[in-house]
Amino acid sequence: MSGDTVEHRKSRVAFPAQERGTDAVARHGRSPELRQERAVQTRMQILDAAAQIFDERGYGGTSVKDVADRVGMTKGAVYFHYPTKEALTVAVVEAHYDRWPVLLEAVQNEGLGPLDTVVELLDRTARAFQGDVVVQGAARLQMEQPLPEGVLPQPYVGWISLLEQLLAEAEEAGELRAGVSPAAAARTLVSTFFGTQHISARLSRRADLAQRWGEARDLLVVALRA
Amino acid sequence: MSGDTVEHRKSRVAFPAQERGTDAVARHGRSPELRQERAVQTRMQILDAAAQIFDERGYGGTSVKDVADRVGMTKGAVYFHYPTKEALTVAVVEAHYDRWPVLLEAVQNEGLGPLDTVVELLDRTARAFQGDVVVQGAARLQMEQPLPEGVLPQPYVGWISLLEQLLAEAEEAGELRAGVSPAAAARTLVSTFFGTQHISARLSRRADLAQRWGEARDLLVVALRA
Repeated sequence: MSGDTVEHRKSRVAFPAQERGTDAVARHGRSPELRQERAVQTRMQILDAAAQIFDERGYGGTSVKDVADRVGMTKGAVYFHYPTKEALTVAVVEAHYDRWPVLLEAVQNEGLGPLDTVVELLDRTARAFQGDVVVQGAARLQMEQPLPEGVLPQPYVGWISLLEQLLAEAEEAGELRAGVSPAAAARTLVSTFFGTQHISARLSRRADLAQRWGEARDLLVVALRA
Repeated sequence: MSGDTVEHRKSRVAFPAQERGTDAVARHGRSPELRQERAVQTRMQILDAAAQIFDERGYGGTSVKDVADRVGMTKGAVYFHYPTKEALTVAVVEAHYDRWPVLLEAVQNEGLGPLDTVVELLDRTARAFQGDVVVQGAARLQMEQPLPEGVLPQPYVGWISLLEQLLAEAEEAGELRAGVSPAAAARTLVSTFFGTQHISARLSRRADLAQRWGEARDLLVVALRA
């Protein structure tokens, strides 16, 4: 690491790869002919409906029948794509994790400094929590931990690692207040973000999330910026 | 409010009363002879065991039989004190809310300034999350929302309201940085605290909570203090 330039390291900043021991469960049932456009769209429809219901009722309150009813399909048709409620759960959570590298790339294309990249990334993530049903459903599932340890990816660690890398760049660029530890700041940002979105979900069904995240982010930036 | 002195308002700072529509459920089964020392101790034993198991396994993974086994009683004996799993759930969450006014009074007796009162209160609350099984079990139950809307007290609002009052005092005492809104700061403190304790619970079973809360609190104090 020591010999890297900031530019070199910047290009390597990424979410760490998540272990996905359960891919087989989530993808069971796929066959070549299913890879048609229509099948993909059906799967996405089912996933969105499942995410919505998981968000509204939690894992325990959701059945495959509920999901089938919402998309206007038979239970059998849903099972054809996702053979169990567990498979649906894993698929929703994995689809949610797949959002973040895409978001990161979009923000990195803006060419902001590292600290502003952190801020912009979290601002857009707040909007995703407000508008993206898959993110919302996955957030509740991750919190409820309905499946055995190790089946769902470990939450938070990918975000903490990514923000720590960006904040280390911010430190090198002289953007951090003296004495701020990139690792501690990354953990605090993730904790504050997560707490803000969770409390907003509980108290206003996320209606006030942009405002609540904005005020929390402004306070944290005062503490972080040089 | 406008004519109040700081001293006067200080004496009124308190957690707002929580609606407890479910007292009847939780207290069902009490009778005069149960109010003996032994019965009270038995109830506390059951409550502690239930809280522990709720924390370990969540609401869905906990049965009254599990609780009975842990305290070495029959299921019937547990039912005598708490007639349903729902009653046990409500009792654990209410016992958790009962901790905070006691903690607040202890901190207020230290005679600290308002901002330091906020910090000391949250530091002690972090210790309670690390060492108090009732607080731990209630935290998981509140997150899972296993009971219908309105059965458990609404989370977070009492803490936000209390901290807002203390921070308004801090503002009047000139302790807050110019431009900091007591309401926004209170919400951010509660979000950060909640997120920190939740992530610590998930990633280290709260082993690192004191350290994690310490680093988050230090950053926030930089943003808040004049």
